Amino acid sequence: MTILFTKSMTMPVFSSATASRRFMLSVLATLPVVPTLFGNTMAQAQNTPLASWSEGPAKQAILDFVRATTDRAGPNYVPPEDRIATFDQDGTLWVEHPLYGQAFFALGRVHELAPKHPEWKSREPFKAVLANDLTALAHFSERDWAELIFVTHAGMSQAAFLNVATEWLATAKHPRFKRPYTELIYQPMKEVLEYLRANQFETFIVTGGGQDFVRAYSQRVYGIPAQKVIGSSLVTKYEFKNGETELMRLPKLFFNDNNDGKAIGIDLFIGKRPYAAFGNSTGDREMLEYTGAGNGARLKMLVYHDDAAREYAYGPAGGLPDTKVGTFTQSLMDEAKARTWTVVSMKNDWKRIFAFET
Amino acid sequence: MTILFTKSMTMPVFSSATASRRFMLSVLATLPVVPTLFGNTMAQAQNTPLASWSEGPAKQAILDFVRATTDRAGPNYVPPEDRIATFDQDGTLWVEHPLYGQAFFALGRVHELAPKHPEWKSREPFKAVLANDLTALAHFSERDWAELIFVTHAGMSQAAFLNVATEWLATAKHPRFKRPYTELIYQPMKEVLEYLRANQFETFIVTGGGQDFVRAYSQRVYGIPAQKVIGSSLVTKYEFKNGETELMRLPKLFFNDNNDGKAIGIDLFIGKRPYAAFGNSTGDREMLEYTGAGNGARLKMLVYHDDAAREYAYGPAGGLPDTKVGTFTQSLMDEAKARTWTVVSMKNDWKRIFAFET
Repeated sequence: MTILFTKSMTMPVFSSATASRRFMLSVLATLPVVPTLFGNTMAQAQNTPLASWSEGPAKQAILDFVRATTDRAGPNYVPPEDRIATFDQDGTLWVEHPLYGQAFFALGRVHELAPKHPEWKSREPFKAVLANDLTALAHFSERDWAELIFVTHAGMSQAAFLNVATEWLATAKHPRFKRPYTELIYQPMKEVLEYLRANQFETFIVTGGGQDFVRAYSQRVYGIPAQKVIGSSLVTKYEFKNGETELMRLPKLFFNDNNDGKAIGIDLFIGKRPYAAFGNSTGDREMLEYTGAGNGARLKMLVYHDDAAREYAYGPAGGLPDTKVGTFTQSLMDEAKARTWTVVSMKNDWKRIFAFET
Repeated sequence: MTILFTKSMTMPVFSSATASRRFMLSVLATLPVVPTLFGNTMAQAQNTPLASWSEGPAKQAILDFVRATTDRAGPNYVPPEDRIATFDQDGTLWVEHPLYGQAFFALGRVHELAPKHPEWKSREPFKAVLANDLTALAHFSERDWAELIFVTHAGMSQAAFLNVATEWLATAKHPRFKRPYTELIYQPMKEVLEYLRANQFETFIVTGGGQDFVRAYSQRVYGIPAQKVIGSSLVTKYEFKNGETELMRLPKLFFNDNNDGKAIGIDLFIGKRPYAAFGNSTGDREMLEYTGAGNGARLKMLVYHDDAAREYAYGPAGGLPDTKVGTFTQSLMDEAKARTWTVVSMKNDWKRIFAFET
């Protein structure tokens, strides 16, 4: 995704997130337990790695890669401090259809902030958002989206933003699955994260989405701490008053972590070429090229959404319906084949998609 | 330090680094052994932590801090994923006088590149550098320094820059100590790094200097991998040709990681407030303020260079000689006292400064 949501898209009806502080606190109260749960899961992952994956070339590629890079006697051994694995987030680790979670968050925030901005009722693009005018939304310009993002994501401190994002995540539900977005994590990918970490890989999120939005839940949901989340970001300003500090979010893009920005962001934040990279759309192309251009064993994987029954089916690669949200073009599919990247079929390679499936 | 070296300074005579590829390779050949050596040192550090520190309030502050933050039953317990410690580099981890190592590198590069640029002989600021004109150098403007930095640090790929930096580090010697800069590491600070890591702290470098310059040696010298080095950086451009990728360094500043930039950089790269921060000059003020404004136990330390016999003495705090390189003002000293930051006297708190001391 891009932080500016520049792609036109079909919008479902959405409602304002009704934030319940009590509910949020009850969710937060469970946090100290999480490390222990993760510990158990990781031990499991080592015993039966990739349990939700069907036998096949995709699962085998992961197992072969880990064996090759951790075998001290082999030619492809990688020392632990260089074991870097990068993961796109929307559409690779969690559901991105019918619309990026963060876009729902932004639109919900407009509804929430509207009482303080009576002028929005008669001013675009806010008027269309408040009226749930899906036709107008689908034709928003890049500038419209930038205005929506800046109004909903800037003009507050990092701490305040973390609070509103956390509150939204605790209350908002996905329109189809009727569950919090943080439950719409792909169980097979969670197993990959755990399997790689059990083999001393550092797992990073490299998202075109907002870095701070993802940091609000990455530790709890993926076991990935904030310091391993790279994403798009706004300019911030440091303030120090009466012994208190704030980092204020300004309405100005600092870094766009998409397309070539993913290779640049990886070099900027990590300073090393990944040995494994996972994506699902054209925004991940450069990250996989950058990873694949390294020597030795490198794992390059693309998740292909071909399962309308259990999740969604979109491409347009392979004749699936076209989309502006997480586009997987035929050109990307052709490049994947030419460069021997592994394409993961959600339908065939994943026995189970979500942890809540029975 | 600032990446632009905007401060006027007195310049010693320097000579071009005569790069010997054979010597560099012989140094690199020893690298695989280093992790083992570090392992031994860390085990030692756990047995006798901070061996090069004299008994006193500074050493005690470190011990007390670690005890408080790692005691599961105590009120100041910090979970491992939040144990963030940040270290300035020049003047905090290694020698920065008479001039920042990276400035010597830049000036040496001008000499090295001069044969390809005959026009430099008659063009400032290059003319003065090539003539070793110390008076002129001392009066270079910010724009002069920017030109020197861009010419010596940009216009090549990240991989090429890593090579020239590595070559310089393997051959250049400090004018007073006649040793490679990477041997001029403060042994007591290395013990702090190891002691904190042995207690599951993540140690980050947060430098006003060049991020990629420090990444060239941070793993080998400090046991700090590239992904934990935050610094000033240039804009880079991603290129993909014939299956090969490059990140090209452009002559444009991307991020200035000094003063308020240190707090901003920590939030950008780590997304968490540090529990411990170490600096030595006004460029570290905001990093310590940001750290100190957090709740619970927070360790804030400033290294005070008051040992002309074993290293250098400069302030002007406490009446020591003034300097434009790593300035420790009286105002910073006053703030340290008012906010109960710990000031480390190199003379009194460090039994030994360098590992090579007998």
